Amino acid sequence: MERLLIDLGEDSYYIDIDEDLLEIMDKAIDSGDKIVLITDKNVDNLYGKAIEKFLKDKKPYKITIPPGEKSKTMATVEYILSQMLDCGLTRNSKVIALGGGVVGDIAGFSASIYMRGIDFVQVPTTLLAQVDSSVGGKTGINMPAGKNTVGSFYQPKAVLIDTKVLKTLPKRELISGIGEVIKYGIIYDDMFLNDIKNEFEAILKLDYKVMKKVIRRCCEIKAAIVSQDEKEKGIRKILNFGHTIGHGLEAITNYKKYTHGEAVIIGMYYEAKLAKSLGYIKETYFKEITDIIHKTEVSLDITMLSLEDLTHAMIKDKKNRGEKISFILPIDKGKVKEVLLFPNEVMW
Amino acid sequence: MERLLIDLGEDSYYIDIDEDLLEIMDKAIDSGDKIVLITDKNVDNLYGKAIEKFLKDKKPYKITIPPGEKSKTMATVEYILSQMLDCGLTRNSKVIALGGGVVGDIAGFSASIYMRGIDFVQVPTTLLAQVDSSVGGKTGINMPAGKNTVGSFYQPKAVLIDTKVLKTLPKRELISGIGEVIKYGIIYDDMFLNDIKNEFEAILKLDYKVMKKVIRRCCEIKAAIVSQDEKEKGIRKILNFGHTIGHGLEAITNYKKYTHGEAVIIGMYYEAKLAKSLGYIKETYFKEITDIIHKTEVSLDITMLSLEDLTHAMIKDKKNRGEKISFILPIDKGKVKEVLLFPNEVMW
Repeated sequence: MERLLIDLGEDSYYIDIDEDLLEIMDKAIDSGDKIVLITDKNVDNLYGKAIEKFLKDKKPYKITIPPGEKSKTMATVEYILSQMLDCGLTRNSKVIALGGGVVGDIAGFSASIYMRGIDFVQVPTTLLAQVDSSVGGKTGINMPAGKNTVGSFYQPKAVLIDTKVLKTLPKRELISGIGEVIKYGIIYDDMFLNDIKNEFEAILKLDYKVMKKVIRRCCEIKAAIVSQDEKEKGIRKILNFGHTIGHGLEAITNYKKYTHGEAVIIGMYYEAKLAKSLGYIKETYFKEITDIIHKTEVSLDITMLSLEDLTHAMIKDKKNRGEKISFILPIDKGKVKEVLLFPNEVMW
Repeated sequence: MERLLIDLGEDSYYIDIDEDLLEIMDKAIDSGDKIVLITDKNVDNLYGKAIEKFLKDKKPYKITIPPGEKSKTMATVEYILSQMLDCGLTRNSKVIALGGGVVGDIAGFSASIYMRGIDFVQVPTTLLAQVDSSVGGKTGINMPAGKNTVGSFYQPKAVLIDTKVLKTLPKRELISGIGEVIKYGIIYDDMFLNDIKNEFEAILKLDYKVMKKVIRRCCEIKAAIVSQDEKEKGIRKILNFGHTIGHGLEAITNYKKYTHGEAVIIGMYYEAKLAKSLGYIKETYFKEITDIIHKTEVSLDITMLSLEDLTHAMIKDKKNRGEKISFILPIDKGKVKEVLLFPNEVMW
């Protein structure tokens, strides 16, 4: 087991990187007067029975939601909260989020507002959730007017990661996670970006030794950033590289065409291009970035979409200030900064 | 103006007790890129136009909800959040809650989850909100299964109190507030309880000098308690004296028969009686408590209600632990403690 501390004073917690989901579930469940496991149908089909059998003595309640971004609504949260009340969960109970980013976001948000907040533990089962969404305490849901526009900063009591669970992950989901992995290299650690490039094949093959190292490094970087700025007043914003355009792409395609990770991959490409156009980075470094982005084989062609719609969607981003759109742009190897641009300054 | 500090480290804020609502609104509005005023129809009818006229230069957005406990639903919160998104509120915007406890609870909860939390200011317009619900950062809504079962701990940036606004408060609402005022005397300050008894007529007549003193002392006591225990892990629980039975009464009468304050007054009476039955307090002190409770002229007759329903409702209270019901009971003058009782130990 590898253990990392997320240092947030009173709200500090550990990330444990391990290799056995059942042992992890056993550890997650070890306290709390009543336990509720929140998961989605896909994860439940894969692991539900085995977990139920293994935990037969301390059988938790289970709430299963439909998979996918479309579940991230107020209606789902209201359903979960009603179920939690029906189960008689108290302030001393605990929520375990078993699943990808969607499950973690919804379960974390529900835990944060149930009786003004009860304990929760993240057991992320996708690469994207393991390296990104489960760490750092952001929870949220979507509103018709925008993604993650409602939510809370609410830290889990622990994040328990099983690297082996990734073997059941669809290729497209794996690629999505790799998008966020690449992001860490670009925003914080150029040597890591090189490692990713060199070991790209091993990552695609889920070589456990490599995956453990990669996941650990991503969590380390996220921990370092989040520890400095839990509520995204400053440095934490750098985690949004690729996300201004990425969120815009998701919004104008109704969260259907792209996975979040795919949208971020395309977003990183066009934001790097924007950085080059504005003179922040040179052609050579732009090529380094695009070389690794191309390895994901995600199509970067967005000519079928309306640039006007995309700009309009980006104007609604919650990170903006005043009339300007907030972008995180690369300015050097392993270095990015926030740049505020008027919509008409965004050169495609 | 009188100023009190609620000392919560990074989340500290001031309570200002003043006498001019328009000046207060002007102060509330002085920062934030966009301002939304959340109020209810009653308050809007009384003060809406004057505020609008006074603030014509920095005209805030306004969201008006129906008055009363029935508005404290997830549907209202979703409506408010959608309106806030439509107004283009950003992370740097501010919510002003102008109204009683219901408005404060809903507006505070909405502010706490809008884009993971934006600033809000409480401008309480009922005695109950001024001495209790606006101070301390509890926000929340009701679910069919129970009152305030969903919400957050979220501190306002300021609480701005106008004592003169109470002159438009219906008598029944004033009495409700007095219920919480009496509570502070019983749980924390026997001398204050004596003052309340002696100045009861002046309070009913809204003598400003007396009201200012009373409101200030209540806020001081609440500040002292909340500063020690923001998240109700310990001493903050004493604020729930009268509330275990009170919440139960509200629940079984569908929040229609009693105002919150009336239910708390009846709850304090029966919880004091319970304390006497269990031998925690003597007959003489019980009489002191009941004497002042009788002054409110709230009917203490609950024989028309089912004790079984009431017990069942109390079992669902979120402050309970395991199978026992949590009561805060007086044990001496100005002193209470938590007592956990099995449902069958509750002697009526």
